[in-house]
Amino acid sequence: MIEIKLQKMDTPCWRNTLTALNKAKIFIVVLIGLLSIVPTEVVHAQQATWIWYPGDYSIWLGNKVQNRRTERGTFFPPFWKMDSHYVLVEFSHKYKLSAPDTIDIKVEGKYNVKLDGKLLFGSPEKIVIPAGLHSLNIKVYNQASVPALFVQGKAIQSDDSWKVTYEDKEWIDSSGKASDTSSGTVYVHAASWNFNSPDNLPSKFKLPTQPMPVVSVIHKNNGILYDFGKETFGYVKFHGLKGKGTLNVYYGESADEALSVDHCETLDRFHVKNAIAKDFTAPDSKAFRYVYVEKGNSLSYDSVSMQYEYLPLEYKGSFRCNDDQINKIWDVAAYTLHLTTREFFLDGIKRDRWMWSGDAYQSYLMNYYLFFNSPAVRRTTFALRGKDPVTSHINTIMDYTFYWFMGIYDYYQYTGDKKLIVQLYPRMKSLMDFCLSRRDSAGMMQGLAGDWVFIDWADFKMSKAGEVSFEQLLFCRSLETMATCAKLMDDSGSEKLYTKLAADLKTKLFTVFWSDKQNAFVHNRVKGVVSTQVTPYTNIFAVLFNYLNPEKREAVKENVLLNPDALKITTPYMQFYNLSALCSLGEQKYVLNQIRDYWGGMLKLGATSFWEKYNPKEKYPQLLSMYGRPFGKSLCHAWGASPIYLLGRYFLGVKPVKPGYQSYTVEPSLGGLQWMEGDVPTPNGKIHVYCSTKEIKVKSDTGTGTLRFRSLSTPVCKTATIKKIAGNQYELAINKDQEVVVKYKSVK
Amino acid sequence: MIEIKLQKMDTPCWRNTLTALNKAKIFIVVLIGLLSIVPTEVVHAQQATWIWYPGDYSIWLGNKVQNRRTERGTFFPPFWKMDSHYVLVEFSHKYKLSAPDTIDIKVEGKYNVKLDGKLLFGSPEKIVIPAGLHSLNIKVYNQASVPALFVQGKAIQSDDSWKVTYEDKEWIDSSGKASDTSSGTVYVHAASWNFNSPDNLPSKFKLPTQPMPVVSVIHKNNGILYDFGKETFGYVKFHGLKGKGTLNVYYGESADEALSVDHCETLDRFHVKNAIAKDFTAPDSKAFRYVYVEKGNSLSYDSVSMQYEYLPLEYKGSFRCNDDQINKIWDVAAYTLHLTTREFFLDGIKRDRWMWSGDAYQSYLMNYYLFFNSPAVRRTTFALRGKDPVTSHINTIMDYTFYWFMGIYDYYQYTGDKKLIVQLYPRMKSLMDFCLSRRDSAGMMQGLAGDWVFIDWADFKMSKAGEVSFEQLLFCRSLETMATCAKLMDDSGSEKLYTKLAADLKTKLFTVFWSDKQNAFVHNRVKGVVSTQVTPYTNIFAVLFNYLNPEKREAVKENVLLNPDALKITTPYMQFYNLSALCSLGEQKYVLNQIRDYWGGMLKLGATSFWEKYNPKEKYPQLLSMYGRPFGKSLCHAWGASPIYLLGRYFLGVKPVKPGYQSYTVEPSLGGLQWMEGDVPTPNGKIHVYCSTKEIKVKSDTGTGTLRFRSLSTPVCKTATIKKIAGNQYELAINKDQEVVVKYKSVK
Repeated sequence: MIEIKLQKMDTPCWRNTLTALNKAKIFIVVLIGLLSIVPTEVVHAQQATWIWYPGDYSIWLGNKVQNRRTERGTFFPPFWKMDSHYVLVEFSHKYKLSAPDTIDIKVEGKYNVKLDGKLLFGSPEKIVIPAGLHSLNIKVYNQASVPALFVQGKAIQSDDSWKVTYEDKEWIDSSGKASDTSSGTVYVHAASWNFNSPDNLPSKFKLPTQPMPVVSVIHKNNGILYDFGKETFGYVKFHGLKGKGTLNVYYGESADEALSVDHCETLDRFHVKNAIAKDFTAPDSKAFRYVYVEKGNSLSYDSVSMQYEYLPLEYKGSFRCNDDQINKIWDVAAYTLHLTTREFFLDGIKRDRWMWSGDAYQSYLMNYYLFFNSPAVRRTTFALRGKDPVTSHINTIMDYTFYWFMGIYDYYQYTGDKKLIVQLYPRMKSLMDFCLSRRDSAGMMQGLAGDWVFIDWADFKMSKAGEVSFEQLLFCRSLETMATCAKLMDDSGSEKLYTKLAADLKTKLFTVFWSDKQNAFVHNRVKGVVSTQVTPYTNIFAVLFNYLNPEKREAVKENVLLNPDALKITTPYMQFYNLSALCSLGEQKYVLNQIRDYWGGMLKLGATSFWEKYNPKEKYPQLLSMYGRPFGKSLCHAWGASPIYLLGRYFLGVKPVKPGYQSYTVEPSLGGLQWMEGDVPTPNGKIHVYCSTKEIKVKSDTGTGTLRFRSLSTPVCKTATIKKIAGNQYELAINKDQEVVVKYKSVK
Repeated sequence: MIEIKLQKMDTPCWRNTLTALNKAKIFIVVLIGLLSIVPTEVVHAQQATWIWYPGDYSIWLGNKVQNRRTERGTFFPPFWKMDSHYVLVEFSHKYKLSAPDTIDIKVEGKYNVKLDGKLLFGSPEKIVIPAGLHSLNIKVYNQASVPALFVQGKAIQSDDSWKVTYEDKEWIDSSGKASDTSSGTVYVHAASWNFNSPDNLPSKFKLPTQPMPVVSVIHKNNGILYDFGKETFGYVKFHGLKGKGTLNVYYGESADEALSVDHCETLDRFHVKNAIAKDFTAPDSKAFRYVYVEKGNSLSYDSVSMQYEYLPLEYKGSFRCNDDQINKIWDVAAYTLHLTTREFFLDGIKRDRWMWSGDAYQSYLMNYYLFFNSPAVRRTTFALRGKDPVTSHINTIMDYTFYWFMGIYDYYQYTGDKKLIVQLYPRMKSLMDFCLSRRDSAGMMQGLAGDWVFIDWADFKMSKAGEVSFEQLLFCRSLETMATCAKLMDDSGSEKLYTKLAADLKTKLFTVFWSDKQNAFVHNRVKGVVSTQVTPYTNIFAVLFNYLNPEKREAVKENVLLNPDALKITTPYMQFYNLSALCSLGEQKYVLNQIRDYWGGMLKLGATSFWEKYNPKEKYPQLLSMYGRPFGKSLCHAWGASPIYLLGRYFLGVKPVKPGYQSYTVEPSLGGLQWMEGDVPTPNGKIHVYCSTKEIKVKSDTGTGTLRFRSLSTPVCKTATIKKIAGNQYELAINKDQEVVVKYKSVK
């Protein structure tokens, strides 16, 4: 046999296969049917990794993480259905070996091994696979944690090219004849993360930690207040703890909170009985800047420090400009996003520490401009979705269901990785079925019993009743996303259906909710009565989704987005969309000032990470309160980090046009800055942009791009041809690895 | 406040509530809505018990039990989807207390406690509930085992009157306002078994054991063969085991099997290293009569015994007659059923040890005439069904899905306990939806990819292709069952639908499959071509379901059931239905001879429990083989125990007419015996029947019954009025606790 290079069975193979398949419902089965008869030819070792059923690890870890929330020392779990991994799965692979291969098998769970359909004795840890064509089936049962497999040989290793199923339907009849196992069983490709050694057990996963010192120590009231200098997350540690008694530890994102023993959001009470001095680290990690400690007199310790807990992340994106306040905002936003990017994209680190689909959706977008960490997006997307049957909206929130759909399409657009769509498409369809089953007679979605219509935390009175225009808009966008994904999956029947549903709903959106009188979308319709209230949400998103003709775009901009009398947004959450929409309307200058005011406002109040909500009119200590509790507000909230996205997407102006930056555009916009410079990460390297009022420089590691800009003088580039588009608008092509330098004169 | 007796919220209350409700889809929500506003008035302690979400414990324990199967030392798990418990649930109750109550709380899992909507600190183990109206909510998270709760106070205790949900949807908005938790959340009543003390943890459940000695010891080949005298189940134990080496233990239901070190179905290899002599018990229980042990020379032990493992069961049913062979058959059948009635009703104890819906269905019916153990039926029914989504038939077998439906209705009929239907109705509907979605254009079900059409193990050639008449018959019966249950649930829309579907299918059954030429049902139709083969199955069940008019009944009896040239049944499984049908046609005498031949035949071959399959033509050692393996056949199989059912149901002749034996009939039939006597259990005591050729005596602890019999002389009863029905047929009423004695002259 000729030795050829490892030919993996994943991406390229199934893409071609998929394209050729037209039958809607059976394509997965057929797909795998085709795959299973083509063994992988292997000759040399690749990286083996722990594998499992797609999504199962995220769901399992999500349960663990989200059930760590405490409220003042009491366990505080989520209020939606938590699903589980499949407890019994079968992994399989076919190999064509040019030489015998000795493989080591490590499994999380009880397992058996079949070689060429024959069960081996016991649960073997090492076996020899002879040369030639062979099939390997390993069945694993694990109730408590995810059934997982690690196989390492010279030629064979566990990776995403393995197949896995939760029901192999492999029965035998009384004569010993086996069932036709290729039929009726849905196999999918296994999933993995980065557990790349046999001893790195998925079930034992913990984020790494590193020691961090206290910055200041102040004796206050009956105890001591420790300041760690900035918002942080981890395990408080007492050095040389000795004696007997209760150690009361009060955590605070603010000093006020830590000192409020009756109202701080998180606390610990440790019952100590140490005859000799010992170091003691709190068993659960918490978010805090301040820790206030009160203790009995018969207890003593030498000092306090902490173990900072974090997800190791590479800062691939960057931003610098001539304005130090903006630079500072970018840095604090990046730190905020890092603190909230953990096992998953969490909302905030102090209180919920849950995955919220609306919050996560923004984290994904910011992530594409900072860490470009795709596994974190995948983990969060799977964990949010859970499993069938669908019994409520994601997080019980209608809008959050819609953001979930939109996030998957964005993922594909930014990463070019279609596998997530392939893995999730059945769950996308069943979630959309849930939505479709809840439409009213007008084909719109109203909040039914148990549905939370969230939209935003607003300081004005906002109705959530009836047909809310914002929800219909997101619903429409979700249907469009489904149509796009159906097309990618060659599910033409569904593509047609979703396309029609989206078009119908879009038409209704305008006929019902667009007010010619107010020249904007109104808020809702209750029992046939259309409200006259204009709220920002539908209008903002209609701009972002590019649903408006030029007249309506202009109207929305003037009447809502830039109208000083319009209803105000007070959360960084909605500011994200509001400012994005304004940027897409060319209002970078206005937006930059908003960033200075809003995020700069938080910095002026001493923020070391960005908040869940900020209303410049609120003063201490009122501004720390939320949910009816004096320190309810989270001071480190992922949705507070949106300048990361705004500056990368709309100032450096980089966005993918084809999936995974195969093609992209760069449209720098200074918004009044003198110069700016930064990197935008892609699946393959970075796109570097420098822009001043006189010069633009772009260098890209990937794809083919288009640079677009406006210039008051005729622009000059020595290495590329500049095309005039219209008026003062120009564009030129960017090729991989070739820096483009343009001399020009910026418009403002 | 006036002290009144504990008024539980379960059965009587919700029955009335249900009757009053007509809306199909929302009845559960509404029901619980109503319940939740009526607090239970409590004043004195009841039995507290561990509670959980209905079905979850069965599913969890089912996973554990069914993943214990081994084949020659290798783990051998099921091939269908295994579901999991809900990992996060909330238990709640409202109480109206006349005095403060101190309650102890014990939980399996991480938990919090809310009293009157307010979270208490930590995870309290003891709290005081003040007098008055109070609500208690306890939320529990447990990934590895079932979230379970035990609460014991003077007036308050955990029991099935508690409510439970897997998604409470209790969110709060930024102002602190809580969601309307009564809406959109489905609460159901908690479930329990018999874990009635706080230290009796559900997760630690194990069946009890007791020591049993070896009956004989024979040195054979290179080892020793131990005979335990009869089929048994448990843990083999080595006394005074010493030395170093491998202890090879080969189990056999026959001596041949145990001695076949290369082909016995189960074996253990223990690696021993005991410097001093120690007793050693095998960690896993096995089925065997014989144990053959081979060991290295440097190993020694004093003796071997076993720990018999069993479910404690009361033998409530009994049967004795003048024929000792029949008595022996009844005893061995009872022992067979006891061995297979364990955590669940298992198929057989040696090999699968799984729940198979078709096997379990028969076990249920036998159980009603022996143990009347309702919890075992409930556990098995829940475990078989698992959870949504439905991805395949139960056990992947089409017929087994149908038996599952039928078993639920039988359960209600025998026990009168409607709660199981209430708990399972949503899962019944979704399983039926799965079936309905798989009909062909004729509205019939064919085996699709991944479906196993089982019917029976037959020694003749039988097609499973196309529309199999037997499957349509069971499908029709399942639809009737759904209609009946829908009616019980006041779900009138579904009742109507299922009734119509059943009627349509029944009509088709006759037009398509009844052959006027053969005067019987034929086997199947493939691509429009109706087969000419007459197999026994459809014909047998049509008799049992009472689908035939008198002419067709007679035709089936003569052409199929009593026709010596008809295709033969070789499994006790189908004999169950075959002989039941013959009994219902009055052929008790024929059936008794069949029992003597068939079950008597196994006894003559030395059976100490009844087998999975028996063909009188097969001889040793061939008769031990099955599935292509020399010892594949199970020699202790639940479906072998059917004489228990036949003798109770058709000879003593006792059956319920209204649910739970509120009314019942007794139609004794000696079938040629001189006399017989026995007890048939009911939910409230027993019905005792004695019948000889001259005298019938019936005494019942429950309900109102009707005794029916035939007599060649005018029958006499001193205490009741005998009514002549027709010819030599008579009947009289049986009242609770009043023995009826009838002098008569039996027909044969």
